[in-house]
Amino acid sequence: MSKVLVRNYSISLDGYGAGHEQSLENPLGVGGSKLHDWIFATRSGNQMIGQEGGNEGLDDDFFKNRGTGVGATIMGRNMFGPVRGPWGESEWTGWWGEDPPFHHPVFVLTHHARPPLEMEGGTTFYFVDGGIEAALRAALEAAGDRDVLVGGGAATMRQYLRASLIDDLHLAMVPILLGGGERLFDDLGPGARDYHCVEHVCSPAVTHVRLVRTS
Amino acid sequence: MSKVLVRNYSISLDGYGAGHEQSLENPLGVGGSKLHDWIFATRSGNQMIGQEGGNEGLDDDFFKNRGTGVGATIMGRNMFGPVRGPWGESEWTGWWGEDPPFHHPVFVLTHHARPPLEMEGGTTFYFVDGGIEAALRAALEAAGDRDVLVGGGAATMRQYLRASLIDDLHLAMVPILLGGGERLFDDLGPGARDYHCVEHVCSPAVTHVRLVRTS
Repeated sequence: MSKVLVRNYSISLDGYGAGHEQSLENPLGVGGSKLHDWIFATRSGNQMIGQEGGNEGLDDDFFKNRGTGVGATIMGRNMFGPVRGPWGESEWTGWWGEDPPFHHPVFVLTHHARPPLEMEGGTTFYFVDGGIEAALRAALEAAGDRDVLVGGGAATMRQYLRASLIDDLHLAMVPILLGGGERLFDDLGPGARDYHCVEHVCSPAVTHVRLVRTS
Repeated sequence: MSKVLVRNYSISLDGYGAGHEQSLENPLGVGGSKLHDWIFATRSGNQMIGQEGGNEGLDDDFFKNRGTGVGATIMGRNMFGPVRGPWGESEWTGWWGEDPPFHHPVFVLTHHARPPLEMEGGTTFYFVDGGIEAALRAALEAAGDRDVLVGGGAATMRQYLRASLIDDLHLAMVPILLGGGERLFDDLGPGARDYHCVEHVCSPAVTHVRLVRTS
């Protein structure tokens, strides 16, 4: 049966998935780009942006498997782009250029309908205005017997966690303090205690924790 | 020069130093006792409560050094005990029996004055009603050339962190979700970004992170 996954989601010690004052120039907010330093230190992180070099080993093993077995991705509108309100004449097609790195259907949560955007390489962005459960149904259908990845950002993740819809949650805890920003975990409620740790390992840069839901 | 330290302070992945519904019977709240399982799995944690056995290794190394070089401890009133409001005729002398494990002066933050309590083994509890800076001055004076430990709980720690008064912060990140409770880190502000990681290691049970303030 298909699972709903989070993979490589980076948070600071104080629990933020992005710093405060997120903007077009600084999409991860003040200090937030440090959350992804570990990714760009890996070989697979470098390959993703067309660069050579980078470390192999634990962090690379996690990051290079980010898409393994995934048939569809869900993301929040803020992760798709900085455009707010109705789409209007917007020509924004995501942060990722003509050939986004997904290569499968991507469901973008929004309050504003928009026709699907078919990109190169097998990625199509679908805009879902029916809420998180509608997006999940559509993603599961599109994924077939593969899994669905919830990509982010923090607000989207939090909604799925609160609704106990995430089956397998891999966090990358980065040993920095941001002091403020967008918090991933906020009063998840008693359902949070149904998650159990199945993997807990660290590199010098980051601690990887994988939790699965057991009821 | 004396430093202000936090050592072995355990928090959940979602950032809680205790679960919700803390009480006399359940001082760490719902699910919160799991935050200290790693301590009671170590040899030094067992010794602390008069038991034999337990693991040696990384976790034990951290826990057995909890008092090394420490000349005074600061704690919040809730960590000292469950009594609230004026002390009145209270005979509460802390959770730790006749011979508390501190063996040095302990400064308890309170809004209500109370004469010092001299216990066995060198521990004296002083009750400070002048705020966190007054308590720190008294603790630094008592510690001489040794360090001051801020013992907890979360609310006390948070006040010292927000005031940028902690020099060296060792956290034990436990890979569980509590879903709610008392949060350690909450909008620390830009001062949080002055902390830098100097140690980041993990055992199967817990990730140890040590941060020092660099300005």
